[in-house]
Amino acid sequence: MASSVFSSTALPPARRARTWAGPRTSPFDRWLSARVQRAIEAAAVRLELWDGTSAYRGPGAAVGDLVAHDRRTLLGLAINPELWFGDAYMSGRLEVRGPLGPVVEALSGLPAPMSTWWDRLHAVLMPPNSRTGARRNVHHHYDLGNDFYALWLDPELVYTCAYFAHPGATLEEAQSAKHDRVCQKLRLRPGETVVEAGCGWGALALHMARRYGVRVKAFNISVEQLAHARARAAREGLAGRIEFIEDDYRNVSGRFDAFVSIGMLEHVGLHQFHALSEVLERVVTRHGGRGLLHFIGRDAPRPLNAWIRRRIFPGAYPPTIAEVASRVLAPAGMSIVDVENLRLHYARTLACWSERFAAARDAVREKYGDEFPRAWELYLAGSQAAFATGWMQLFQVVFAPRESAPPSWTRDDPQDVDAPA
Amino acid sequence: MASSVFSSTALPPARRARTWAGPRTSPFDRWLSARVQRAIEAAAVRLELWDGTSAYRGPGAAVGDLVAHDRRTLLGLAINPELWFGDAYMSGRLEVRGPLGPVVEALSGLPAPMSTWWDRLHAVLMPPNSRTGARRNVHHHYDLGNDFYALWLDPELVYTCAYFAHPGATLEEAQSAKHDRVCQKLRLRPGETVVEAGCGWGALALHMARRYGVRVKAFNISVEQLAHARARAAREGLAGRIEFIEDDYRNVSGRFDAFVSIGMLEHVGLHQFHALSEVLERVVTRHGGRGLLHFIGRDAPRPLNAWIRRRIFPGAYPPTIAEVASRVLAPAGMSIVDVENLRLHYARTLACWSERFAAARDAVREKYGDEFPRAWELYLAGSQAAFATGWMQLFQVVFAPRESAPPSWTRDDPQDVDAPA
Repeated sequence: MASSVFSSTALPPARRARTWAGPRTSPFDRWLSARVQRAIEAAAVRLELWDGTSAYRGPGAAVGDLVAHDRRTLLGLAINPELWFGDAYMSGRLEVRGPLGPVVEALSGLPAPMSTWWDRLHAVLMPPNSRTGARRNVHHHYDLGNDFYALWLDPELVYTCAYFAHPGATLEEAQSAKHDRVCQKLRLRPGETVVEAGCGWGALALHMARRYGVRVKAFNISVEQLAHARARAAREGLAGRIEFIEDDYRNVSGRFDAFVSIGMLEHVGLHQFHALSEVLERVVTRHGGRGLLHFIGRDAPRPLNAWIRRRIFPGAYPPTIAEVASRVLAPAGMSIVDVENLRLHYARTLACWSERFAAARDAVREKYGDEFPRAWELYLAGSQAAFATGWMQLFQVVFAPRESAPPSWTRDDPQDVDAPA
Repeated sequence: MASSVFSSTALPPARRARTWAGPRTSPFDRWLSARVQRAIEAAAVRLELWDGTSAYRGPGAAVGDLVAHDRRTLLGLAINPELWFGDAYMSGRLEVRGPLGPVVEALSGLPAPMSTWWDRLHAVLMPPNSRTGARRNVHHHYDLGNDFYALWLDPELVYTCAYFAHPGATLEEAQSAKHDRVCQKLRLRPGETVVEAGCGWGALALHMARRYGVRVKAFNISVEQLAHARARAAREGLAGRIEFIEDDYRNVSGRFDAFVSIGMLEHVGLHQFHALSEVLERVVTRHGGRGLLHFIGRDAPRPLNAWIRRRIFPGAYPPTIAEVASRVLAPAGMSIVDVENLRLHYARTLACWSERFAAARDAVREKYGDEFPRAWELYLAGSQAAFATGWMQLFQVVFAPRESAPPSWTRDDPQDVDAPA
């Protein structure tokens, strides 16, 4: 048994009693097992059934073992692995023997699973994120309780990709560097007005007001996060410069010098891109303001992993640059000024979170039960694997109205641009 | 008469004799003139007819005057200004009194002309760039003669957007800085192999081989340019490291560490994006190579100005980021790593070229006649206006295969990336 922090916990005995299968596998079980084993053989992951049998013929030692503790799990892996892997792991029906991270990364590197048709169908059927739906989805994830996130995020509670100026930076340094990078890309100047859509626990809004002297209106629909953010602003004497507003991004009004949104676009959903575009046009383009979108994206359109979407982020969809450019920015009259792909930085961020989560595991289990920490470990390890292998991207996109100058002459230039003659 | 280098030349008397209109304008002429004047009034440009009459009621002094020397020109301006402006200016039927650059920029700022429907129709009917068609189009523009371009380009004959590290840089410095920027974005290392599609007079290929120690295969279908490039490589002792190949980019074969193309994509045409994508997949993606595309683009799909397309660049189409991402890069298995919009740098580059062209005007007229320098002045001034006003963009896009790491940990990091654990 590897000593990795990702090693799975022992299977709770209560679960084993509830399984369908008896102690012995049938010829059908072994036939199905051989099929699944063939599909994952290239990842050097070994499948073992509940009686210890395995069809693994892989070369050398396996990266790790999947142990299916009952027939239902075996069936699920055969029919819709993307979805069942997560649920079975969460419930303890599926055990991962060996380090979770590398096993998930090896499986992520395989060709798209057979469940792709299911994902496509789901994408077509998926209802658009109505204001009520968006609220429900956000509550599902972000209102788990500030205390939960405080156990394993950095002290500022930043729950988005950090920027590691060098690979040895700490998570705290990297989150602060990310905020500086965003402000510098936007060329924020003292006295300017900024609207933030989806402000989390308020760390960026506070950073912008404190270090860049801007006035901020920050929108969020997570009640607990807002309470935390308001308390911090009051404590730091910044309440006069930041207004934290409990409302949907679609209701943003007013005129601003800059629009910023970190980690919200992937929750907006394609069906609502036109609404975001209208907001941008109304509150920034029309007044010569610029903006930055920071979001999890894809190279080619594909729905989010089915299990992540069902259990972790309902309603989420990581868009492509093409979708954002053509459905959000172009209709808002915005030109793309700058795009940076930070996917390796997100893999590093997730590795930091996994380490901290492992250290807080006992506290999480005590409060939320057995399944919950297993789901989160899988989510963090799976996401890290997705960013490390290029299955998911992290884009920062800077944009400015077509008619106005880009915010600077060159990327490295701290000065505003003087449009050339 | 303004003293600007852009002031138009006097109308050759021979032209006036060929016009339809007599010395006096009819009520119909004056009605049409009032219509055209209304359309351009917001640009503060005054229209004057051949007998000196004008319907201009604009506020204060006009930026400049358009003088229509005959009824045919007036009709053309009313029906399809985008196309007729160029032809009438080139032939001398339309005179611009005042500085050409600011007049064109003011007109460029107006809402899209009524000719848009014509452009759309043309885009639909426009045949794809076959290999023969591409060859004809390239000859149309680039085989005017090396001597012609040597009159007004920099000594390296770089006919693409430069990079002005600071606004006071010279054109020579800015072209060299552009080449360094491209090589640095690609993180070229000594001994690597690079394929360049559309190499012009070879300046970048020579720069890469000389300063970055790479081996280059550079493709071009312009015979005169290749002859120049080969002679330079031989003279500089770089012939062993660069192979200049007279062939279409679609015939590129082999495997390379990097693909680079500067100012070719806008000549490829949407219909051939799949062909470029296949080339990328075959010669770089499959072997873990990365690439850079530098091209004139748009925020939203729209054909190139009709006159530029007819007279200057047949077959050209400046694509959007969305079109390049979804039709070239995603199907080639490439992730977008970095995008930079350099449109203000192209406006500055064009201003430099216009100045040099004006200084070489007499030499150009002597060799090519009266119309030719007028066409080029308008093309340079119009292009500068398009980049200055955001009507056209200049994108540099860096990409790498989905599975491999981006070429560096951060933008500023000269080291290769070590993928994080």
